[in-house]
Amino acid sequence: MPTTPAMPDEFHLYDTTLRDGAQQEGIHLTVDDKLRIARYLDDLGVTFIEGGWPGANPADTEFFARAPQELSLTSAKLVAFGATRKAGGRAATDPLTRALVDAGTDYICLVAKSHDTHVLQALRTTTEENLAMIEDTVSYLVDLGKHVFVDCEHFFDGFWANRAYALDVIRVAAEAGAEVVILCDTNGGMLPSRMGDVVSAAAQIGVDLGVHCHNDSGCAVANSLAAIDAGAMHVQGTVNGYGERTGNMDLTTLIADLQLKYGWPVLAPERLAGLTHTSHAIADIANQPHVTRQPYVGSSAFAHKAGLHASAIKVNEDLYQHTRPELVGNDMRMLISNMAGRASIQIKGQQLGIDLSDRQLAGQITDVVKQREAQGYSYEAADASFELLVRSMTGRLEQPFELIGWRVFTEEVPGQVSPDASEATVKLRAKGERRAEIGEGNGPVNALGGALVKALEPAYPQVRGYELTDYRVRILDEGRGTDATVRVLIDTSDGRHGWTTVGVGTNVIEASWEALSDAYLYGLIKGY
Amino acid sequence: MPTTPAMPDEFHLYDTTLRDGAQQEGIHLTVDDKLRIARYLDDLGVTFIEGGWPGANPADTEFFARAPQELSLTSAKLVAFGATRKAGGRAATDPLTRALVDAGTDYICLVAKSHDTHVLQALRTTTEENLAMIEDTVSYLVDLGKHVFVDCEHFFDGFWANRAYALDVIRVAAEAGAEVVILCDTNGGMLPSRMGDVVSAAAQIGVDLGVHCHNDSGCAVANSLAAIDAGAMHVQGTVNGYGERTGNMDLTTLIADLQLKYGWPVLAPERLAGLTHTSHAIADIANQPHVTRQPYVGSSAFAHKAGLHASAIKVNEDLYQHTRPELVGNDMRMLISNMAGRASIQIKGQQLGIDLSDRQLAGQITDVVKQREAQGYSYEAADASFELLVRSMTGRLEQPFELIGWRVFTEEVPGQVSPDASEATVKLRAKGERRAEIGEGNGPVNALGGALVKALEPAYPQVRGYELTDYRVRILDEGRGTDATVRVLIDTSDGRHGWTTVGVGTNVIEASWEALSDAYLYGLIKGY
Repeated sequence: MPTTPAMPDEFHLYDTTLRDGAQQEGIHLTVDDKLRIARYLDDLGVTFIEGGWPGANPADTEFFARAPQELSLTSAKLVAFGATRKAGGRAATDPLTRALVDAGTDYICLVAKSHDTHVLQALRTTTEENLAMIEDTVSYLVDLGKHVFVDCEHFFDGFWANRAYALDVIRVAAEAGAEVVILCDTNGGMLPSRMGDVVSAAAQIGVDLGVHCHNDSGCAVANSLAAIDAGAMHVQGTVNGYGERTGNMDLTTLIADLQLKYGWPVLAPERLAGLTHTSHAIADIANQPHVTRQPYVGSSAFAHKAGLHASAIKVNEDLYQHTRPELVGNDMRMLISNMAGRASIQIKGQQLGIDLSDRQLAGQITDVVKQREAQGYSYEAADASFELLVRSMTGRLEQPFELIGWRVFTEEVPGQVSPDASEATVKLRAKGERRAEIGEGNGPVNALGGALVKALEPAYPQVRGYELTDYRVRILDEGRGTDATVRVLIDTSDGRHGWTTVGVGTNVIEASWEALSDAYLYGLIKGY
Repeated sequence: MPTTPAMPDEFHLYDTTLRDGAQQEGIHLTVDDKLRIARYLDDLGVTFIEGGWPGANPADTEFFARAPQELSLTSAKLVAFGATRKAGGRAATDPLTRALVDAGTDYICLVAKSHDTHVLQALRTTTEENLAMIEDTVSYLVDLGKHVFVDCEHFFDGFWANRAYALDVIRVAAEAGAEVVILCDTNGGMLPSRMGDVVSAAAQIGVDLGVHCHNDSGCAVANSLAAIDAGAMHVQGTVNGYGERTGNMDLTTLIADLQLKYGWPVLAPERLAGLTHTSHAIADIANQPHVTRQPYVGSSAFAHKAGLHASAIKVNEDLYQHTRPELVGNDMRMLISNMAGRASIQIKGQQLGIDLSDRQLAGQITDVVKQREAQGYSYEAADASFELLVRSMTGRLEQPFELIGWRVFTEEVPGQVSPDASEATVKLRAKGERRAEIGEGNGPVNALGGALVKALEPAYPQVRGYELTDYRVRILDEGRGTDATVRVLIDTSDGRHGWTTVGVGTNVIEASWEALSDAYLYGLIKGY
């Protein structure tokens, strides 16, 4: 077995999703969003939650004002983020320092410049005044009884540009009473092999060290691990790696690496089992897609495609996975594909709660899947269509509605832009009633979807809550020109569950209809 | 400045996008897709392109059969992937070994088991026979004049489970004539700090070593760098990190790290400047979204939220970026005068034979491209639409036909399958004649295409020879349900030339019409 460093007596998981994570393009968090995310972070078990920058941002000021009443944190401690006082002023009279104190947290994290060029060019003050700003602000807050952490911005670039000055910044912060000094790779260009020397040099000063990485060189998690290996006892990151540019260090991945690769008990095992749920819930609050390839928590993270692997997994599932997915609350999902055989169909059935241990039945289903895959169907992502197929082959498929027919009409006249250029009619029978409804839309699938919802709604009001979240089309048999077969994949969500259906045909609208109507059928029979 | 290891005399960038990358959930590459991706990889400048597993997969066999005629690789070498012969057989009579030889490449990469438990449980043979399989297959292929690489599957887990056996596998492969032996982290659970010891132990054997990582612990790039630091001279990965589960090591990131952080000239600078384009074009071919947060090449990789950083960047842009985005063909989107954007537009113009050396014109085109990309257009793959745009902005776009309008009607009645379920009318003016034609088809795009061809044919008989070869649709703004904007990419061919056009809109048929009519327009003005 490989060797692993020992866990420090005190170790901090410091989450900055609410501040640095919120800098990501496309993320806009309301105060309510932030409060909800903070509760998830507390449930997960991080040590610190950085809530924002009070005074710099009205929403963050409001967050800290509401937090004492509305957050009942069970274990995490809330941190207010701010900067050292203005050049030439005094911490005691600095309005932003005041706002930090007013936030009312026991913990404060101050950002300080540690790269001399940044002090001169961006801050436009002297290197001496920058040290005075750190000394003054830290000692003022410490005197008020606050626990103070100091984020040294651009530390690594600063260390190579002017090592003595960068180390002076740490020394001044430590002497003023900072409990942890955090080395920040602000521009994100670090590599793990370069981390050890810098952290070791900083460690000579004798203050507890932390690390804050960004993923610009694709190494944020590895850089953080390298700093921890070199003695850092505090690590900053964000859930799902949200953050500016390429994002912050993904705390989700780091937690799992520390717990499952280093064997460090950074979280109680039952909290680690909530990792996947926490990641997905926070993605939903932040209105970000779930990243299927995300380590540990992605929906593909433990999915297998190759037939070769499938038969081996039946023998010993640990042969083809680096850790047990259930430890992080994920599961091993076997993809159905023409590379796979009966073994993967059986495992897939098991995951869906369908008994396919009967070899003959599993063999028949495998044959049908292969035939349909030869026609162009793909059940790899379309779990819902796979379940519908298995149910229909085992006589367990209810028919909540029966289609009578549909029509779609679309037109364009240059210069006459119409917002409802498509018109669809859907006729069906549901709960004994015949319905004929019209739908208009800016596209034929949209129009069909609208008509279908209207026709189903009297019998099944829950269909209003289903939403098409992605729609993908591919031509399968090139060389047949516009006669080619197309495959449509539709992702649907009811806000709590997500499912994928597939349709195939030479007509993109027919294929879309198949995937669309199966999406509604699946939602209805699952009771979503 | 940090220290950097020296570059080995020989260094291999080994791309396995076409084989291991294609294992990713949701990726389905046709043979044409693979040929196009291979051309992009060759243009980028990778050393080796692993094309697939001939004999195991009919599409891969076809790829190798077509490659000699259809790929004119300028620098990359094609590699056929396969496994060691069957247990108890002989390489000389093994059909899969035969298929490897028949693939006709000079280079072959064989996968071999190097973890004793996998040999016993998954391969179900003895550890001795596994060594014999390696010896027999490698030496048979070397005797035929092939250059042979050996991928040691599950090497790291195998090394910790049975170090002597794992090293024996390398030794046997090397003695049989393998030129490079690759240590594979098949399950992807490695950490960089654990890489050095293993690679150093393997290096004692004296054969050139490579590394093949997956991203299950979020450290694939860092693990590969650690192996390179320890002496590996060959690194395997995929463009954009495509691959099973959490994906393979992202070669895109690694190339930039080696070139820009290590200072190794792994690519000529002008090829490195094609990195972003290559990444995006291959994503489009694979029908995968561009990952905005991807290091170096993501659209957010150098984007800054306005505020604190904005003014500092105006003083000294290097203060807030870890490298210069133009080196990888990306751009820093916050700047108003966008040097990098204009530079790539100019390069693009050059590639298309259009003179865009005029700075003002190039700037105007850059602005329009950015506006249109904000609406959802993507010109990464759609060279034909880009050329039409440039021609229209430079007054050099002829109008061989003028659209008057179109309509499409589609219907389905269960039990009444019609081969011509869609009906379209197209009205246009060509060479002074007004034409109104009807097209029937098994799909609306098909029907529109048929009507368009009929309407154009009297004036331009050559349109009969145009063929739509691929049709891809993506929803761009998830979370807006069926109201979302869609992007359609259409590939067209006249048998000798291939071109790609793009259409965008909330109506899939309108967006398809835009891409379709531009495809015909482009073919006509190019004289195809």
